[in-house]
Amino acid sequence: MSEMKIGVIGTGAIGQTHIERINTKLQGARVIACADPNADFCKSIAEKFSLKAYDDPKDMINADDIEAVVVTAADNFHEEYVLAAIEAGKYVFCEKPLAPESNACRKIVDAEIAGGKQLVQVGFMRRYDPGYRQLKELIDSGDYGAPLMLHCAHRNPEVSGFTTEMSVENSLIHEIDVLRWLLGENYETAEVVFPRTTRNAEGELRDPQIMYLTTESGIRIDVESFVNCKYGYDIKCEVVCEEGTLTLPEPANVMKRVDAARVTPICRDWSERFVDAYNIEFQEWINACKEGRVDGPTAWDGYVGQVTAAAASKARDAQSVMTIEFDEKPAFYN
Amino acid sequence: MSEMKIGVIGTGAIGQTHIERINTKLQGARVIACADPNADFCKSIAEKFSLKAYDDPKDMINADDIEAVVVTAADNFHEEYVLAAIEAGKYVFCEKPLAPESNACRKIVDAEIAGGKQLVQVGFMRRYDPGYRQLKELIDSGDYGAPLMLHCAHRNPEVSGFTTEMSVENSLIHEIDVLRWLLGENYETAEVVFPRTTRNAEGELRDPQIMYLTTESGIRIDVESFVNCKYGYDIKCEVVCEEGTLTLPEPANVMKRVDAARVTPICRDWSERFVDAYNIEFQEWINACKEGRVDGPTAWDGYVGQVTAAAASKARDAQSVMTIEFDEKPAFYN
Amino acid sequence: MSEMKIGVIGTGAIGQTHIERINTKLQGARVIACADPNADFCKSIAEKFSLKAYDDPKDMINADDIEAVVVTAADNFHEEYVLAAIEAGKYVFCEKPLAPESNACRKIVDAEIAGGKQLVQVGFMRRYDPGYRQLKELIDSGDYGAPLMLHCAHRNPEVSGFTTEMSVENSLIHEIDVLRWLLGENYETAEVVFPRTTRNAEGELRDPQIMYLTTESGIRIDVESFVNCKYGYDIKCEVVCEEGTLTLPEPANVMKRVDAARVTPICRDWSERFVDAYNIEFQEWINACKEGRVDGPTAWDGYVGQVTAAAASKARDAQSVMTIEFDEKPAFYN
Amino acid sequence: MSEMKIGVIGTGAIGQTHIERINTKLQGARVIACADPNADFCKSIAEKFSLKAYDDPKDMINADDIEAVVVTAADNFHEEYVLAAIEAGKYVFCEKPLAPESNACRKIVDAEIAGGKQLVQVGFMRRYDPGYRQLKELIDSGDYGAPLMLHCAHRNPEVSGFTTEMSVENSLIHEIDVLRWLLGENYETAEVVFPRTTRNAEGELRDPQIMYLTTESGIRIDVESFVNCKYGYDIKCEVVCEEGTLTLPEPANVMKRVDAARVTPICRDWSERFVDAYNIEFQEWINACKEGRVDGPTAWDGYVGQVTAAAASKARDAQSVMTIEFDEKPAFYN
Repeated sequence: MSEMKIGVIGTGAIGQTHIERINTKLQGARVIACADPNADFCKSIAEKFSLKAYDDPKDMINADDIEAVVVTAADNFHEEYVLAAIEAGKYVFCEKPLAPESNACRKIVDAEIAGGKQLVQVGFMRRYDPGYRQLKELIDSGDYGAPLMLHCAHRNPEVSGFTTEMSVENSLIHEIDVLRWLLGENYETAEVVFPRTTRNAEGELRDPQIMYLTTESGIRIDVESFVNCKYGYDIKCEVVCEEGTLTLPEPANVMKRVDAARVTPICRDWSERFVDAYNIEFQEWINACKEGRVDGPTAWDGYVGQVTAAAASKARDAQSVMTIEFDEKPAFYN
Repeated sequence: MSEMKIGVIGTGAIGQTHIERINTKLQGARVIACADPNADFCKSIAEKFSLKAYDDPKDMINADDIEAVVVTAADNFHEEYVLAAIEAGKYVFCEKPLAPESNACRKIVDAEIAGGKQLVQVGFMRRYDPGYRQLKELIDSGDYGAPLMLHCAHRNPEVSGFTTEMSVENSLIHEIDVLRWLLGENYETAEVVFPRTTRNAEGELRDPQIMYLTTESGIRIDVESFVNCKYGYDIKCEVVCEEGTLTLPEPANVMKRVDAARVTPICRDWSERFVDAYNIEFQEWINACKEGRVDGPTAWDGYVGQVTAAAASKARDAQSVMTIEFDEKPAFYN
Repeated sequence: MSEMKIGVIGTGAIGQTHIERINTKLQGARVIACADPNADFCKSIAEKFSLKAYDDPKDMINADDIEAVVVTAADNFHEEYVLAAIEAGKYVFCEKPLAPESNACRKIVDAEIAGGKQLVQVGFMRRYDPGYRQLKELIDSGDYGAPLMLHCAHRNPEVSGFTTEMSVENSLIHEIDVLRWLLGENYETAEVVFPRTTRNAEGELRDPQIMYLTTESGIRIDVESFVNCKYGYDIKCEVVCEEGTLTLPEPANVMKRVDAARVTPICRDWSERFVDAYNIEFQEWINACKEGRVDGPTAWDGYVGQVTAAAASKARDAQSVMTIEFDEKPAFYN
Repeated sequence: MSEMKIGVIGTGAIGQTHIERINTKLQGARVIACADPNADFCKSIAEKFSLKAYDDPKDMINADDIEAVVVTAADNFHEEYVLAAIEAGKYVFCEKPLAPESNACRKIVDAEIAGGKQLVQVGFMRRYDPGYRQLKELIDSGDYGAPLMLHCAHRNPEVSGFTTEMSVENSLIHEIDVLRWLLGENYETAEVVFPRTTRNAEGELRDPQIMYLTTESGIRIDVESFVNCKYGYDIKCEVVCEEGTLTLPEPANVMKRVDAARVTPICRDWSERFVDAYNIEFQEWINACKEGRVDGPTAWDGYVGQVTAAAASKARDAQSVMTIEFDEKPAFYN
């Protein structure tokens, strides 16, 4: 079967990573073009990877030889390009968030439904991490009873230029998606509290934060966001079920016995921690598109994620519990 | 140095354990008498351990040859016997709670102060667990910065005759004491929430529960209480500090490779999990009494524990955050 | 760059796995033909994967459109097909062993040298396992001093139709290659001893066995081979260095707390344990061939492996230590 | 029951540790006297612990108020004092080795048998370590089938003034005893090999060494002795059985997440690693003596240990396998 031809919008670090991934590691597709508002930079990247450069992403979206689009542009432009791809009837993989505002996400959902075909996938790569997949399989087996509580943490060694708002919007959005997928049910309430702030937080930043979520069946989730934890990039998830608990595995690293200790390395950044997840995510996306379907996180998932994040942000600003109100799920996504 | 002579009030399971512990495992003291409202049963236990039996605990407290008293009677009787011991000028080790009501605890505190000498120790044995002691030493070293969050769990395999109230009062009271000791600061607020209830909870019992505590410096604590977790007796405590996290160790057990898994046993009950803590607690109590002092959890700690538990109970009933109000700490306890 | 066209010799289980791997998971190559002495079976596999079927593997090797060959035929046929590929000037990936007899391996080495170009790679996939690669990187860093001892185990849950000879030749051959690669030096002596035999060994089989190897610099290696260990497929490697030890990581699996134990799954077979290693091995082989070189285990490595295995087999039969004699390494392989 | 009165021979570091242990931590006994060839030093220790000092250990052994003796004198004097204790009909706890020469051990055995009562216990404290006890219980359960192989290591961070001979005689003697106890059967052969020597070994010292032992039923044991491993004091024992393996637990220490790693401390010396074992060993010895029996390692165990160590030493010097010849076990010890 011939390779699916892809155009990438946004040629920054993430965009380049995806170009390299698709063109040197994965199978069945090829990035043949790229587009970026910064025309000169776009040209340099196009040369580096032997791609065709477009000044206007929409021209690329509408080009005859482009079958699918990857959107890694700045968040504010996601809506415009995803809608253009839908209009052109092309598959579109959009990095999270689908759009910063939930009503923009809703607009995308409506456009996709109007077009009559699922074309949009959102880049929630955690669902492809082998550890989370094991967790989901074990939960779904029913062998441990219903999940009752989730205790999670999302820690970065350090960040700069980070604001209090970004903990929910940039970090915890990953947990918002992956935990809902893991549990197979929607959230009902959100709350965000501020523990004592670390001396390592810059300026006005409140770090760490803890987000509490509850689900329709009453499952209670706590997720710590700690973006200046100093020690490493660390993702924890413990699922407490009625007859046992399940813990997300640590990455497999060599254990050293040295300096009066057993020492096992922890990752320093997300790209190292989730490299397998990214590869699997894109390979499965390519495979599904070539079979004429989307089987990853949908536009609806993108909408639900942003509604939840918005409620959590409101809860954080108000320092009180917020009820989360979703539109009814369209039958289109069942 | 001669052995300290001890009388034990309450000859139930716990009382017998302590008699056996002091008389066959520890050094420097001897239980020579016991007292219990159930006179016949008391006599049978006295015979078993070759002790003198008293019908009235107060007679035993006031007996000339008794130097120290251990109170393991029903909670409601703690106040009466502890006050009697203070009046008799004798050391008294009282199982938690010091008294169910915080004003009863305060009365004991006042009596002890009036007596002019510290005589009371409360049975919060977690402070003697080698793992918690390691945690405290590491926190106090300052090498990891200030603690910001504590994530804890207190799980029992199953219970019967347990009520929703007992999660705070019987289970979480241990964390209330040990975490305050670990951090060296008082609590400010308490909250108790109800996750989805396990199908394994009897009757009206809400199980699991999560208690949230905040401290004076803003440290935020979550403690899961899950008394029907089914899988084992399990105590978890992770201290998230500014430059690293510290995790309470698992008990040292043989790891088996069997049946396609690495399998390491978990305890089934608290007496197994904390056997070392109990031994160390009583040995250190005996040693301190013989040197004329009390160096374990004081009557004031007992008071603070009950005030905190009362606030958490109120918070649970009201399903809202409660501020915790303590009396000012008397200089007597500094 | 166009896809490298591959023909696979041997359409049994392993052959099919490689066809599927190359054609659905990896990039840059495509299996377009297969050959097997069992012509009917070969045809059915060819149909299944839409390949061209050849009755005679040599016809396929010499076909104009075939650029590289994968040999998964029965061990005895390896020599013939690898030599044919060398003669045809085509890259050839040969499953281990390169050939059962070391003089056959030597013949391949000589043919390759005579041809003037490295074309042969041997399927020692352990070198591609991420855990072993971490070990090698840490050893090579020199941070832990020189390796002094290696303690290893290679365990299978159970086997049937296995003979005492096969422990060295089929199982331990993997350690023979990967440990030499890890240490970067040759072996000097081999010994094989028989511990107490498990009641689960069939017939005359001696199981477990332990192979001892020493290297040029005096490093001492013990490798347990236990093919009926019952509990799972388990690979262990501890490298004891002058200033620390390094342990091969366990696969990353969910830890469950259930039934009074912490339980982490162990694989049941090698294909699950080394699936990543196989994928990386073939992708790197494809990439290297397309760049005109071989950078995996060479024909010389295949020769050295068989010489070592032969010495170990002799040592086992004689129940004494054998010195291992290698030809001098041809400059061609430096 | 009154306290058993003990005299300690040898007032060096170990002797003092035992005096302090018995007099401040354990129950049912009291050290009341000490003896040491260095009379002045002996007096100073006697004063420190309020003991009676004896110039001649035999006077102390024969003193009316001494009921039991602990021998921690230099190895060469063990025989003389143990025999004197047997003659005096007093319980004697002798630190390992019972005597450096196996025929001296045999002499003690014969004297004890002639005396008609078991009085001697040898200080092999590993049998009292809770981890080894768990191992023994699991092996004896039969749930995992027969043991087939043991893989062990005994590592010290560093030593000075150590000779090649001492690895067997001072370090591995502990494994010689505890593994035989664990398995419940005698050894048949011993061998000691020299891996590459660490650059951290002083002078002519060969370090590390590996001892191989086989047992009557064919179980094969490897024990690494590495006295300059640099990283810590570390004891490993893996028992490979027919249907599973069992691993000696690591000490329970806080795990830290810090500096991009999970870090769990390892002990730095044996006294820290085996402090519980020593306490249990002496408490059980006291309890047994007071009940009129010896239930720890016997004089016969001391004899068997030295015979095995002598064979291992001979095997090391000859660099070949030695068969171990024991006298027949006297019925007295069944």
